[in-house]
Amino acid sequence: MVSQAMREIGCRRSAIREAYEYGLRRAAAVGAERVFDFSLGNPSAPPPPETIAAFLDVLSTCSPDQAHGYTVAPGSPETREAVAASLNRRFQTDFSARNLYLTCGAAAALSIVFRALTIDGDSEFLAFAPFFPEYECFARTAGAQFAAIPADTHRFQIDFDRLERALGPHTQGVIVNSPNNPSGVIYSEQTLRTLAQILKRKCEAFGHPIYLISDEPYRELRYTDERIPFITELYDAAIVCYSYSKSLSLPGDRIGYALLGTRMPDFDDVYGAIAGSARIQGYVCAPAVLQRVIERCSALDVLPDLSGYRRNRDALCGGLTGTGYRCVPPDGAFYLFVEAPGGDGDAFAALARSEDILVVSGRSFGCPGFVRVSYCVPHEMILRAMPGFRRLYERARAR
Amino acid sequence: MVSQAMREIGCRRSAIREAYEYGLRRAAAVGAERVFDFSLGNPSAPPPPETIAAFLDVLSTCSPDQAHGYTVAPGSPETREAVAASLNRRFQTDFSARNLYLTCGAAAALSIVFRALTIDGDSEFLAFAPFFPEYECFARTAGAQFAAIPADTHRFQIDFDRLERALGPHTQGVIVNSPNNPSGVIYSEQTLRTLAQILKRKCEAFGHPIYLISDEPYRELRYTDERIPFITELYDAAIVCYSYSKSLSLPGDRIGYALLGTRMPDFDDVYGAIAGSARIQGYVCAPAVLQRVIERCSALDVLPDLSGYRRNRDALCGGLTGTGYRCVPPDGAFYLFVEAPGGDGDAFAALARSEDILVVSGRSFGCPGFVRVSYCVPHEMILRAMPGFRRLYERARAR
Repeated sequence: MVSQAMREIGCRRSAIREAYEYGLRRAAAVGAERVFDFSLGNPSAPPPPETIAAFLDVLSTCSPDQAHGYTVAPGSPETREAVAASLNRRFQTDFSARNLYLTCGAAAALSIVFRALTIDGDSEFLAFAPFFPEYECFARTAGAQFAAIPADTHRFQIDFDRLERALGPHTQGVIVNSPNNPSGVIYSEQTLRTLAQILKRKCEAFGHPIYLISDEPYRELRYTDERIPFITELYDAAIVCYSYSKSLSLPGDRIGYALLGTRMPDFDDVYGAIAGSARIQGYVCAPAVLQRVIERCSALDVLPDLSGYRRNRDALCGGLTGTGYRCVPPDGAFYLFVEAPGGDGDAFAALARSEDILVVSGRSFGCPGFVRVSYCVPHEMILRAMPGFRRLYERARAR
Repeated sequence: MVSQAMREIGCRRSAIREAYEYGLRRAAAVGAERVFDFSLGNPSAPPPPETIAAFLDVLSTCSPDQAHGYTVAPGSPETREAVAASLNRRFQTDFSARNLYLTCGAAAALSIVFRALTIDGDSEFLAFAPFFPEYECFARTAGAQFAAIPADTHRFQIDFDRLERALGPHTQGVIVNSPNNPSGVIYSEQTLRTLAQILKRKCEAFGHPIYLISDEPYRELRYTDERIPFITELYDAAIVCYSYSKSLSLPGDRIGYALLGTRMPDFDDVYGAIAGSARIQGYVCAPAVLQRVIERCSALDVLPDLSGYRRNRDALCGGLTGTGYRCVPPDGAFYLFVEAPGGDGDAFAALARSEDILVVSGRSFGCPGFVRVSYCVPHEMILRAMPGFRRLYERARAR
């Protein structure tokens, strides 16, 4: 006597979680040092020292009401001003508090935005494979349609012909995720400019905005100096969903935001719908103490120390490609998206378990011929796993 | 081009927020000391010292991953065990980690539970007036029907005849909130036992469970020694929605839980539907650092210091009833629900503004003849407001 849809979603295990839980059982059986778990996206770097200092400062200098009291639903105005000012300094944007709606991380921002933009059962959202599987879950349970545009598996940029064919009069939103989970690829400025051009043209043809939902939890995890314009500078109807989970290594604490471009058409309607969607989903305000922490980190433009991830990326990418594996060199995030030797991600992920190597099949990301290898892990584990990866490569190709 | 329903909900101001914002404007115009704001339910007591100590302990002794890493979606098993053990000590219950699903406060728990229990558009939830207005918002946006059972305005217990008539084959849940916002009344053991009996009889008649959703953010705010059994001891299909907002004075930090009774019929289905509903609403896990804080507070059975609220209640209740106002003596929470002199809560709340006294009309709680007066305020403000309340009483009766 409950919602069967909710029960099924609640009882279904994601491929990522299934791999992680298998790893825990295996570690209990054979010892943790024998299991090579590359399944999770849990930052292995500790929070930056400024973040820990900010926590202690909030607890020791704020009044109880400032540190732990209700804020207005979109988040404390001072916090939003500080976040906006930091973005403006870093990206030459023009944001203020009113552009921001603070949320319990990017997942909350996304689920809120999908619901806010769903007009009726015909409303459709498009994502480019490979994509984070929760997009589909959020879109469909908001009552909308969802479609994935097949991957350009050569460079993991956008296949614009397929995009053009997929866009229709009911398209409400297009989701981009750069740096990408699971490919680690960053969309080039040219990719984003072409995307914006096509969307603008289609907006005019269909007579209504198509929102560009930019999911950016990995924005600060880039291993290249290439400067790419902030998405709202390229497209007016852009909504950024952001999380501090990866940049400040606070994934469990749930703090992030939805951000609307200043030149967003019908700005007040979109912001109002986001406020309504947050309210009906029980989001009273983002955790107050975390708001105060990011306020302080924003004042200092705190960024993550990427040296550990970079070292891991180089060791893993170099080690695997040296063996014969193929992947697009990842410029961001902390994932390597590897062509499964033998061509089947499910089969390779299953085979890898015989070496106690845990990776996630690309199937749930919309790319069944790949596996995702997370490198937010201890560096020495990458080195110790290499012989196993080499054996796997030969075995998978021999099958 | 957004959801009009979401936009309207997002732009609609609640009566409580409207009064609060009016008060801020008035304070800017005439000085904060001239405005008597009894509109909000923001705890005026600081967090208990053990709670602040717990925060500092988490930050100084936990590993970054323990303090800030992802937990499993229902919340850290150790935290849930500690919460269950504390409840078992205090209420002689039999809970363990598996009964609990940690949430971002009671609002999150409620919105998750309504969605989990909504089977189709006929599913109905019932609440007893006066009730927290968000119940209706959560139920309707989950896709269900909502109906309010008129108040027993004599004692604010339950009018069982009206309940019997309202229960039908599509009733999925009945919501109780004791201690009550806005009346401050606590349901007696007899009320709860009779309620449980009727629901059990109706479950048998209709051939399916009717869930009793017990919204208990004020559970620890009671000014009486009367011991009332925990709701799951009286009724098997009870789901408790709890928040630490009021008991630990952490309203902005958003931490609470949904709790299922051990003898809940179809326990795994209900728990699974709650997990699914939380997932689609973007709740990855309750804020990790707050989970660790309540784990420590639970180990110590930390309870709020009620002396300030009790003193406020006595001063406000005594002052108002001495003037001629009528209200049921509140045994819990921090609200007084007062019969509006003249009979119209809207009119009285508007009139009160001429004395710069801000109260909330009972209309949005389903009792239009009343006003809610919050006493989580500085004690001296109650004393200074009394002459204004006296003048209002005479003016309202003279109209």
